[in-house]
Amino acid sequence: MTVTMSRIDHDMLGDREVPLDAYYGVHTLRAVENFAVTGIPISHYPDLIRALAQIKMAAARPNLQLGQLDAERAEAIVAACREIAAGALNDQFVVDVIQGGAGTSTNMNANEVIANRALEVLGRVRGDYRHLHPNEHVNLSQSTNDVYPTALKLATYNGISRLIDAMAHLRAAFERKSDEFRDILKMGRTQLQDAVPMTLGQEFSTYAVMLGEDEQRLREAALLIREINLGATAIGTGITAHPDYASVVCHILAEISGVPVITAPNLIEATQDCGSFVQLSGVLKRVAVKLSKVCNDLRLLSSGPRAGFGEINLPPRQAGSSIMPGKVNPVIPELVNQIAFEVIGNDLTVTFAAEAGQLQLNAFEPIIAHSLFKSIGHLGQGCLILADKCVDGITANRERLEASVLGSIGIVTALNPIIGYANATEVASEAHRTGKGVAELVEARGLMTAAALAEALRPEALTKPRPITART
Amino acid sequence: MTVTMSRIDHDMLGDREVPLDAYYGVHTLRAVENFAVTGIPISHYPDLIRALAQIKMAAARPNLQLGQLDAERAEAIVAACREIAAGALNDQFVVDVIQGGAGTSTNMNANEVIANRALEVLGRVRGDYRHLHPNEHVNLSQSTNDVYPTALKLATYNGISRLIDAMAHLRAAFERKSDEFRDILKMGRTQLQDAVPMTLGQEFSTYAVMLGEDEQRLREAALLIREINLGATAIGTGITAHPDYASVVCHILAEISGVPVITAPNLIEATQDCGSFVQLSGVLKRVAVKLSKVCNDLRLLSSGPRAGFGEINLPPRQAGSSIMPGKVNPVIPELVNQIAFEVIGNDLTVTFAAEAGQLQLNAFEPIIAHSLFKSIGHLGQGCLILADKCVDGITANRERLEASVLGSIGIVTALNPIIGYANATEVASEAHRTGKGVAELVEARGLMTAAALAEALRPEALTKPRPITART
Amino acid sequence: MTVTMSRIDHDMLGDREVPLDAYYGVHTLRAVENFAVTGIPISHYPDLIRALAQIKMAAARPNLQLGQLDAERAEAIVAACREIAAGALNDQFVVDVIQGGAGTSTNMNANEVIANRALEVLGRVRGDYRHLHPNEHVNLSQSTNDVYPTALKLATYNGISRLIDAMAHLRAAFERKSDEFRDILKMGRTQLQDAVPMTLGQEFSTYAVMLGEDEQRLREAALLIREINLGATAIGTGITAHPDYASVVCHILAEISGVPVITAPNLIEATQDCGSFVQLSGVLKRVAVKLSKVCNDLRLLSSGPRAGFGEINLPPRQAGSSIMPGKVNPVIPELVNQIAFEVIGNDLTVTFAAEAGQLQLNAFEPIIAHSLFKSIGHLGQGCLILADKCVDGITANRERLEASVLGSIGIVTALNPIIGYANATEVASEAHRTGKGVAELVEARGLMTAAALAEALRPEALTKPRPITART
Amino acid sequence: MTVTMSRIDHDMLGDREVPLDAYYGVHTLRAVENFAVTGIPISHYPDLIRALAQIKMAAARPNLQLGQLDAERAEAIVAACREIAAGALNDQFVVDVIQGGAGTSTNMNANEVIANRALEVLGRVRGDYRHLHPNEHVNLSQSTNDVYPTALKLATYNGISRLIDAMAHLRAAFERKSDEFRDILKMGRTQLQDAVPMTLGQEFSTYAVMLGEDEQRLREAALLIREINLGATAIGTGITAHPDYASVVCHILAEISGVPVITAPNLIEATQDCGSFVQLSGVLKRVAVKLSKVCNDLRLLSSGPRAGFGEINLPPRQAGSSIMPGKVNPVIPELVNQIAFEVIGNDLTVTFAAEAGQLQLNAFEPIIAHSLFKSIGHLGQGCLILADKCVDGITANRERLEASVLGSIGIVTALNPIIGYANATEVASEAHRTGKGVAELVEARGLMTAAALAEALRPEALTKPRPITART
Repeated sequence: MTVTMSRIDHDMLGDREVPLDAYYGVHTLRAVENFAVTGIPISHYPDLIRALAQIKMAAARPNLQLGQLDAERAEAIVAACREIAAGALNDQFVVDVIQGGAGTSTNMNANEVIANRALEVLGRVRGDYRHLHPNEHVNLSQSTNDVYPTALKLATYNGISRLIDAMAHLRAAFERKSDEFRDILKMGRTQLQDAVPMTLGQEFSTYAVMLGEDEQRLREAALLIREINLGATAIGTGITAHPDYASVVCHILAEISGVPVITAPNLIEATQDCGSFVQLSGVLKRVAVKLSKVCNDLRLLSSGPRAGFGEINLPPRQAGSSIMPGKVNPVIPELVNQIAFEVIGNDLTVTFAAEAGQLQLNAFEPIIAHSLFKSIGHLGQGCLILADKCVDGITANRERLEASVLGSIGIVTALNPIIGYANATEVASEAHRTGKGVAELVEARGLMTAAALAEALRPEALTKPRPITART
Repeated sequence: MTVTMSRIDHDMLGDREVPLDAYYGVHTLRAVENFAVTGIPISHYPDLIRALAQIKMAAARPNLQLGQLDAERAEAIVAACREIAAGALNDQFVVDVIQGGAGTSTNMNANEVIANRALEVLGRVRGDYRHLHPNEHVNLSQSTNDVYPTALKLATYNGISRLIDAMAHLRAAFERKSDEFRDILKMGRTQLQDAVPMTLGQEFSTYAVMLGEDEQRLREAALLIREINLGATAIGTGITAHPDYASVVCHILAEISGVPVITAPNLIEATQDCGSFVQLSGVLKRVAVKLSKVCNDLRLLSSGPRAGFGEINLPPRQAGSSIMPGKVNPVIPELVNQIAFEVIGNDLTVTFAAEAGQLQLNAFEPIIAHSLFKSIGHLGQGCLILADKCVDGITANRERLEASVLGSIGIVTALNPIIGYANATEVASEAHRTGKGVAELVEARGLMTAAALAEALRPEALTKPRPITART
Repeated sequence: MTVTMSRIDHDMLGDREVPLDAYYGVHTLRAVENFAVTGIPISHYPDLIRALAQIKMAAARPNLQLGQLDAERAEAIVAACREIAAGALNDQFVVDVIQGGAGTSTNMNANEVIANRALEVLGRVRGDYRHLHPNEHVNLSQSTNDVYPTALKLATYNGISRLIDAMAHLRAAFERKSDEFRDILKMGRTQLQDAVPMTLGQEFSTYAVMLGEDEQRLREAALLIREINLGATAIGTGITAHPDYASVVCHILAEISGVPVITAPNLIEATQDCGSFVQLSGVLKRVAVKLSKVCNDLRLLSSGPRAGFGEINLPPRQAGSSIMPGKVNPVIPELVNQIAFEVIGNDLTVTFAAEAGQLQLNAFEPIIAHSLFKSIGHLGQGCLILADKCVDGITANRERLEASVLGSIGIVTALNPIIGYANATEVASEAHRTGKGVAELVEARGLMTAAALAEALRPEALTKPRPITART
Repeated sequence: MTVTMSRIDHDMLGDREVPLDAYYGVHTLRAVENFAVTGIPISHYPDLIRALAQIKMAAARPNLQLGQLDAERAEAIVAACREIAAGALNDQFVVDVIQGGAGTSTNMNANEVIANRALEVLGRVRGDYRHLHPNEHVNLSQSTNDVYPTALKLATYNGISRLIDAMAHLRAAFERKSDEFRDILKMGRTQLQDAVPMTLGQEFSTYAVMLGEDEQRLREAALLIREINLGATAIGTGITAHPDYASVVCHILAEISGVPVITAPNLIEATQDCGSFVQLSGVLKRVAVKLSKVCNDLRLLSSGPRAGFGEINLPPRQAGSSIMPGKVNPVIPELVNQIAFEVIGNDLTVTFAAEAGQLQLNAFEPIIAHSLFKSIGHLGQGCLILADKCVDGITANRERLEASVLGSIGIVTALNPIIGYANATEVASEAHRTGKGVAELVEARGLMTAAALAEALRPEALTKPRPITART
């Protein structure tokens, strides 16, 4: 004897058995079968599930107020959404992250799970949609085409917030190092060639400044991303929605989610446009490019230990080689480089998907979402790991650094305003040819006295602007 | 008997003959020989040449005020720069747009042309650098590493301004069409499938809104791009520059150029960072993506004339085929699509070049500049051409458009709140199967009266939100 | 009282507790902690794990033959590898797919799991490395720098084989449709404008041909990817390896894996070079670009049902809208479009990672591997889904298609050689202006007789080259 | 009194004045006005103009043989084409390189110039198309849709040949250096960390090998690119062309051009497909990626002169700084890096344009052509410049290189098979901690005798595989 383990659900394609213990229904099931690509379900992004629940919860309120939905159903929907927003039914969000249909399957997955949980709240059994229907009640006044992009925007907004925090954490690590290394003199380099002196603290301060700027750019991108099209329904004309719906639901959603969402001025445009995603992706690419540059620098400065720059030491995190004993590699910066390369690739995917939008909708938002979620999440992890497992433990080889300045040809630039570019060029050439020191040669040529040289080559004089009387 | 047609110039590599009538010198000459790649000289971008001249003019003032430069030389430099800013010596800027050396050759090309012209102003002959030297006087308190990026920023700022104007011009064209087509009903489409009705005016309004948003994003990018590092000299420490120089030169440059430049807070960071170029390039990519989407739509809506959508007609601009008589193609949108593809490619070049920056400088700014200048210029041309040669002449096939709404299944969505999603789905299926009209079927099934249908399917009811009493 | 659940393992950073039931060791553990980015372990790619096991198995043989390893250990290693190649210990491969260290952690994960399983085979306990050591015995004559890229190549080779099969499956589906639609006349289109007639079968045949060509390109890429650097050890000089090792291990690996691997002619080059990965990624991008184009076409041809091209019908796979009853969307082509966009993005990631290689090694192979594995796997799934859930069920709207030819202006091109380009242009213009048919107008102008027209416009005459006597 | 300086030409849009001395006509003129984007005319690519002339010349032959064209006109066309192929009328090819219309304007530019020159040959005046018509005679049996892609393929084929020569020239330069440096010992590096010894000759040999492989990949891409669709006419069905035309014209074109063109097996597919361009672009990207990596290495190895790796010296090509006296920068490798970044961006443009093809044609081939021509040309220039102005003049700092091996910790890897990985790790750690030499420490610990050490650390032993008896 077997107990039946499924219920019958129905859609335009006919009847289908759905597992009895599933909160999702036939729409979800067909989507799971149609889109078996990555093996990664949308629950991989809890921010997205929470956003969907918050939107459905928010929609129930104006639907009730404007007389579209009765109180009993509205309350049941709200109760179900509250649980889901808290993560209770995450395992029911099973559609693949890459999916056709412009997010319809994600929206229907939410509608079905909410409806079935709400039915239980009402004392009904799952699937008994006569009492509460995924489309007619949970999705009331909505369409995938306004719900889905709104959910993406809530989710990315929250992701950006966490990313900004992670970047601030990394920035603080660089600031501490900048302070620690503030009086260590070293050669600055342009085009990988010895240039003029600076302090190691100055060098590390730039990484902190870069991060601070990027945080600001992300805050601006977040301001754009919070513009939603809820109330647009199918194509932005608001068909089936009450004229007051859009403004009420936006207000409530802001309250529920804590995200300061605003309604786009033109809902038809907002429904088809992916501009704010492209912009955000561009900013994430910017962050990636600069983080990658920072990691390139860290790897270069710590190259060696003997046959490289050897200026700083990264803390060892693991044995570096299966064959070379004692080798330690810059594995954390390498990790972050690779995250950056991934983010840059994701940006291209977003670009392609955005460009491919047609007429009143962009059907490719699911891959945009998947790409953005990865970029935001991985960059955040990268920043935390870089701060905690690398930057915090960096030490400087002060002697080697300072020796490189004393032995450099580049300090001749500091004498430029005093002895002139032409003389300086000759001194530099001789130094290069003979291996002699610049100060020695300048004194020998009678261009400056030892005292004047000592004054001109003080560290503070080398690393900041200062008044110089032009030679006559 | 031959007359000597060259003068001797000298640099660290030795003596070189320079054409007698050239204003440039040995540094420029060597660069021309070293970088023979594209055949396009930097004078291809007059904005850049003007920016260089304005910077050199601006630098002369604090150099004079702060006692670094005497009045006679300062005035000669200013006079030469004024001529060059006006375009007088554009043909002397001969270095290739793609060049190694982080822009040094471009800066030296400017230093040499200015010095030689200033020498003439002083009554001296070209090349007689004892009286006025390209490096010691024209380049005083400067380095390529602050002059060059500052010049790029001035030039791109001016380019962006023109691009915004061109976009506004295109936006106005779309707004006029949006108004002209405001009462033409048509089917909206999502995922290329018939969705719900809208007006053709609504459809065209979205293109105007998109452009307006992109103009705003460009304005924001321009605000970032105006942050300069003049006074940084070699690596941002300001070596060889007077402590007051940076603030004075910035103030004067703003005055001379009309661009509201400000000095970056951390000059070391500003000297090595390409973040604002990456950001700008990302915004240009966004503009390209959306323009391309608009052109895709225009080509789709005008597809046919008989076996396509055939909703609008683009004005014919040229015969479309060497073999098919009478064929007319959407050549202007196709042009803009291709500009967009070029801009997206340029963005990748910028991304690569920015990521490749090392330590205190990015050596690859020349290709960043070349890429940005092309993107900005071509996008602007594309917008003007699209407005004048395409959008302005678009006409609508009103009858075909309106017939598509009457015959559509999609209008059933409007009845959804009245007859319910389940009934509506059945009506839609029957309509699809039999080819019959939705209204006919709804009435036949006794779901609504003819009067109620007429009311529910009024154009105004279909293209805006409206209050509907939920069915009981 | 608690039972100890861990053992102590040791590396250059000191002692670490490892879970008692783990086959991996301290190197793996540190890597898991260092690289917590995606949450996806390398076991997500079973091809990779099998490849690693096959390589280690292959290496044991020459190590034994050349007197580097005793028989007992060699056999234990081989036994352990055989189990792992069969998938027995997949859950022990726990390092994140994105990792720093050039794959060292993946290689060490393999070394440790194999060593510990081999110790059990020898009757020893896990962690008792005195008897069989991950580095000294399992990794003998090897380095991450030859093992890891070789493993990637084996794994991608096998992935390519499956992808080719999936493409052939899709190709066969298109070929069947091409045959089914071979006599359905339709208008061909260039630049979205009606051009000249063709058959729907011809149209579908092109998709099959495209796939066939791409399969061939993948086969060529597979030939390049099978070139391995085993025996290179650390940097390609073969340090620590026996002179005969490279050729023997390659031969054995080919036998074990069934992949016809060959040893690269210059191992130093082969160790640092990622050219074959870039090439493969470029070919995958080509496949993606063309698949995407095919899906764009399918979506366009099936647009409608009423206000679009409406030439073909894709089989409905799920309800298309949460709001629009009866709407069906082209979800499967949309899915494949998105896979294509992902693959194009992955190609960029590969490009960046490859370019970033420095000197004797590319440290970024892990992200190259992750990107390639995703691209290969998702493309394969996409092809299978597209064939089974879309192409196989496509039907044609024969009447609409054929009517479009009869009503077209484009058939005038067929008369071009008879009536001349100038006359044809005038006929086309009149047809466009009046809506009349081409044949009607040609006859009315006395340019051709009805009989000549009937002959010239036979379907076979329109869709193939044919001899025409030039008009005099 | 004014003399009329124009003639009247006519097309479907009406009459137009054309400059009297122009060989082009109304179609070209309208295109010039429509596509004013880059300011660069198609004559910038002489390969393209020659290819167009060769195709038109080739087409005249079967047209004559198959009775479509009389001998007098055929001969005049051939005569005109011969002149144009030789470059005589390059300045008449004035359409912008970026253009809408799928290349129609380029094809019409050719048709018009050829017709007008042929009219002169016939003793007629330009514009008197009754005697010889651009479309009816010059374009006979052709369409833009087969002529244009065929011209692109001829032109790229020839470009590839020159690029391969340039790469071979660079390869030879690296081979000479590899030979010159064959006995200079140095430390190899992985992940920028000191690894194990190698020779500088080995390092340079890898660059030569890389180039050789890329040449081979380009040869393969050239084989694919030579597949043409001449005879396809409008969409590949061969409408208006004689059944024998395609094979005859291909044979003759091969003869005339020297390019071994073959006719594609399925002309409908070949007409719409851009796969071979995408493939070629992918291979060019591969070349760019690897050239860029080589240049990154050269810049790194020559970093310094004092505070960098300082292993090699690049020949100075110009003064490196406007402010830092005596500074010399690696301007040539930097140039090539930037060319590589441009090529990678171009590849993305090609990818976007190829993906955007629709149905029977890709309308975006002009931007594909422009991108490929730039990539091929600039890469070729880059290779020649890199060889002649950089690689040929590279010198090595032998003492510094050899000292780095003696002082290295990495040589302990060579002792690994003798003293074991565990002992070796301890030696490495102590060396790192104390700064002492590896050999000293190994002897002090009694692990090896001085004689055994001397033997094990011979240069030949360090840079090649060798038999080692495993320790017991």
